[in-house]
Amino acid sequence: MAGSAKAMERRSGISLWRQIADQIRHGVGAGTLAEGGRLPPETALAARFGVNRHTVRNAIAALIDEGVLRAEQGRGTFVEERRRLKYPISARTRFSEGLRDQARDRRGHLLRESREAASGRVAEALDLADGAPVIRMETMSEADGRPVSRATSWFDAERFAGFADAFQELGSVTLAFKRYGVEDYFRQSTLVSARHADDDDLDDLGLAAGAIVLVTIAINVDIGGRPIQFSETRFAADRVELSVTPPA
Amino acid sequence: MAGSAKAMERRSGISLWRQIADQIRHGVGAGTLAEGGRLPPETALAARFGVNRHTVRNAIAALIDEGVLRAEQGRGTFVEERRRLKYPISARTRFSEGLRDQARDRRGHLLRESREAASGRVAEALDLADGAPVIRMETMSEADGRPVSRATSWFDAERFAGFADAFQELGSVTLAFKRYGVEDYFRQSTLVSARHADDDDLDDLGLAAGAIVLVTIAINVDIGGRPIQFSETRFAADRVELSVTPPA
Repeated sequence: MAGSAKAMERRSGISLWRQIADQIRHGVGAGTLAEGGRLPPETALAARFGVNRHTVRNAIAALIDEGVLRAEQGRGTFVEERRRLKYPISARTRFSEGLRDQARDRRGHLLRESREAASGRVAEALDLADGAPVIRMETMSEADGRPVSRATSWFDAERFAGFADAFQELGSVTLAFKRYGVEDYFRQSTLVSARHADDDDLDDLGLAAGAIVLVTIAINVDIGGRPIQFSETRFAADRVELSVTPPA
Repeated sequence: MAGSAKAMERRSGISLWRQIADQIRHGVGAGTLAEGGRLPPETALAARFGVNRHTVRNAIAALIDEGVLRAEQGRGTFVEERRRLKYPISARTRFSEGLRDQARDRRGHLLRESREAASGRVAEALDLADGAPVIRMETMSEADGRPVSRATSWFDAERFAGFADAFQELGSVTLAFKRYGVEDYFRQSTLVSARHADDDDLDDLGLAAGAIVLVTIAINVDIGGRPIQFSETRFAADRVELSVTPPA
């Protein structure tokens, strides 16, 4: 097992205890480490990873801070049962509907709104002329009070004048679209990538250092096929997985 | 800018230069940092991030090692142009076809094969009795000689006896299925998550420490709707994004 610790030391710039924390988090997530939800004793973990108990203790303390583990006085260390939300990506992706069976309370909050000239990528996605006025909305979505995702969305400012007010009042993009006569809409494309959370993500989503975000870049179109929304959404990867299913 | 450096120091267990490397990698990826593909001078970056030049230099050296940046003698530091592959997830997901326009050479390699008793998750996905014999295949997929993904797949050992040999000979799951009379098949479901690469991922995919993998858990079914393949695939997140599109 010493070989394993040595291999980890080579990952320079990341301290050994954080590497052990990553390994424990992974083992817990994969279900290979904690039989019955209980973490093995520090001495066993130290032997397993080829490090000393002090390193293991620091790693466990960090994971307790992150909410991955929970210490119970006199009983040991346990895995926090935290089911990941399954966020459906389909032709009919809607935040609230998609999480209906997984969270009682689902809502979107408007953080900021601004008006800007459509840039290359935004203009192309919304099929607008370069420089056309667009509404930019910064939003946060929560499920049962827990931040699920943070998004930046763009809308045609002429067709959807005042959209941010409608969203703020109704707490839902779907309901806000109805105000503008968009009775139905479809997800045209979704590009999924992953990266480390930046400082904004850490603040916005309340994540711990080293966290990962799943990023979706999506275009929604109305029933006539006209693009109505372009968005970039960041999901906390430890709270959400994306479920891609073909249309029923 | 000192506030920013201080905020980063709080991310304990990750050294300041690695945090700066993460910030630069992100800025480069988001297109906000390097105008025209050229990184600002060290002094400008040091001021921007509120750290000293030594820290910036270490961060840049790490990103050159990772292949994110490239130093040109006397000219400065440049962003390596490396387009991410767009891996399509749809009802008709196939590795080679999906990357046809993005890589000349696409192939799968068999790393290991074994026979095992279907566990709960595998049995359920393949609609087999618990303990039924299944073939487990460890594979690697490359595009133009570069590892794209690493997968573990399970197949019904009765219906697909000798499947690994067929795959090894043909280099394609789609072609191997044809040997067994499966002329067409469909992606029934795909679950997408992201996590830090573990030691196996780092080795298998040739990733640098701290890398992220996108993980897909997928079920393929034949035209009669019977499950024929269950798989967990790890994609290097800095090389691949998943493109989810509705059926044409």
